[in-house]
Amino acid sequence: MGGDRGPAAVVAGMAESAEKNPDIRFIVHGPRAELEALISRRSGLAERCDIRDAAGVVTMDDKPSQVLRKGEGTSMWSALESVRSGEAVAAVSCGNTGALMALSMLRLRKLPGVNRPAIACLWPSRNPQGFNVMLDCGADIRADAQDLITYALMGMSYARNGLGLARPRVGLLNVGTEDHKGRPEMKQAHEMLPAIAETANFDYVGFVEGGDLPSSRVDVIVTDGFTGNVALKTGEGTAKLVGEFMREAFANSILSKFAALLAMTSLKRLQKRMDPRRVNGGIFLGLNGTVVKSHGSADATGNAAAIKLAYELGKSGFQDRLAARVAQSIALGAAVNDKKSDSEGAA
Amino acid sequence: MGGDRGPAAVVAGMAESAEKNPDIRFIVHGPRAELEALISRRSGLAERCDIRDAAGVVTMDDKPSQVLRKGEGTSMWSALESVRSGEAVAAVSCGNTGALMALSMLRLRKLPGVNRPAIACLWPSRNPQGFNVMLDCGADIRADAQDLITYALMGMSYARNGLGLARPRVGLLNVGTEDHKGRPEMKQAHEMLPAIAETANFDYVGFVEGGDLPSSRVDVIVTDGFTGNVALKTGEGTAKLVGEFMREAFANSILSKFAALLAMTSLKRLQKRMDPRRVNGGIFLGLNGTVVKSHGSADATGNAAAIKLAYELGKSGFQDRLAARVAQSIALGAAVNDKKSDSEGAA
Repeated sequence: MGGDRGPAAVVAGMAESAEKNPDIRFIVHGPRAELEALISRRSGLAERCDIRDAAGVVTMDDKPSQVLRKGEGTSMWSALESVRSGEAVAAVSCGNTGALMALSMLRLRKLPGVNRPAIACLWPSRNPQGFNVMLDCGADIRADAQDLITYALMGMSYARNGLGLARPRVGLLNVGTEDHKGRPEMKQAHEMLPAIAETANFDYVGFVEGGDLPSSRVDVIVTDGFTGNVALKTGEGTAKLVGEFMREAFANSILSKFAALLAMTSLKRLQKRMDPRRVNGGIFLGLNGTVVKSHGSADATGNAAAIKLAYELGKSGFQDRLAARVAQSIALGAAVNDKKSDSEGAA
Repeated sequence: MGGDRGPAAVVAGMAESAEKNPDIRFIVHGPRAELEALISRRSGLAERCDIRDAAGVVTMDDKPSQVLRKGEGTSMWSALESVRSGEAVAAVSCGNTGALMALSMLRLRKLPGVNRPAIACLWPSRNPQGFNVMLDCGADIRADAQDLITYALMGMSYARNGLGLARPRVGLLNVGTEDHKGRPEMKQAHEMLPAIAETANFDYVGFVEGGDLPSSRVDVIVTDGFTGNVALKTGEGTAKLVGEFMREAFANSILSKFAALLAMTSLKRLQKRMDPRRVNGGIFLGLNGTVVKSHGSADATGNAAAIKLAYELGKSGFQDRLAARVAQSIALGAAVNDKKSDSEGAA
């Protein structure tokens, strides 16, 4: 029920997904009458939907703290309950991000060993898979060394299951690649990650910079949620600006307008490659259940992309693999800490 | 002598500048024989240059701490000395940023009242002036509330003198625009800035997000140097990626190649608008002297842009205006603090 475009855009996205994936089914949460009216307009969709009546709506302006107190009875709460009960393999929402994360933590609870859950997003890149993973994109504005290590392991697991990479390369976002750069918690994680990478079977490439987000030297970029959120929005804003400048450049003369007409296919391919709707769907990592956050302004195509992501992660059994990975991380963290205090004791 | 392209690119930039600005003169620092050879190849340049022999070179890999200990006798040290003595109105360098900032702080000293100097950069934007100012771009990875307020005042002064804006609009970079978002030091600065803006005659627009960096709702974006550096490099990296994707799109078929040929003028205009070399020149704010940091990989055009910025700021008497502005900031800060403790006392 949330999102800037309301439930019509969500139902339109469901219809797109239903057409492409014959075995997908939906549990839809919100005011029954409104949802029934929207769903009945799409042929064949009603048979694949269970509607759960929920009168309340979390608005885009509600503060997470308010939602935690008064969220029961909202469509968001109801959607998370269906994941909690095991009825649904994943929840998809384009509502208020802060409220969704707060309610997810309250109802689904954090995985044992996870201190701060994270939001992972996909970033268009020069890699063969077309995208890199960045996390945290804004679940929490803080992250200590242990959080960054957990993000590395969760992001790596997501890249393995979501992008099909056997041995993901993980980097830590910093203001330079030299060992002495960055904040204390980053230096600490940087020291611990090589040993963890060796045991957990991924490559740690060290510090990376903002310019490496789309680069082919890394698959997973780890950072705190403040930096990640600013980077994400800066990247989106820059891509949008270049797109506007390009349109203005082509609208400038008759000749350039004619050229744009000739290059239509190429320009459309470019647009598709940069289209944020194609990579729509931040995923919440570190909870007992899969939650996909669709963009607040997502349209039918955007919501279909988010649903597709949830569907594929559900099919791959990602949630269990992630939990196993985090459990391993705890064991590894303990091992690394033991080793560290051993060597400190010896020094 | 620093930079990725060595002194040849610097001298080429000087030659470009000299042609455009008949009254510009240079004091050039480095090994005399090498510089004389490079300068003598450019007609008319030698007469406008004083060479200061300096055998040492700060390399791009030197740590700032090393340079502080052993920097005397380097071309970077010598260039800063010419600003310190008043012989030069500004120093321009495309060398090691960390070392340049450390040496600048050592030799030029911070302006009274400035705790952390900042690097300000220009960001292509939708504003009539074509650019927004962002600071800090990486001088210091930390910033407390008072630093953020000083950045706001220095950035505002730079926008007034460098971009000719009578009443710059200043925003604070955050992960959302709501008052309750962000780190504690940001919330504190956010509370204090409306009163300071009123007295110092600028507009405080409140929190802005990464997507607002190129926006027309703000002229000056204030943030800590960690976030600023990541945002800057993310923006550059994204613009570069879009450019590559565009070239690939146009190289895709005979038709699109033909279209690219027809649209050449428009594409060149677009490229010029996004060209980072045109906005080359981060400026160090908060020191007793003007230092312009040219990009490490700057070519002749890039270095000419950095020299032009130094030249225009020198002509406008920017350094004195900035010092006056910071002095006012100290008085204002005291006033705001007094007011605050008054009202706290009354409450």
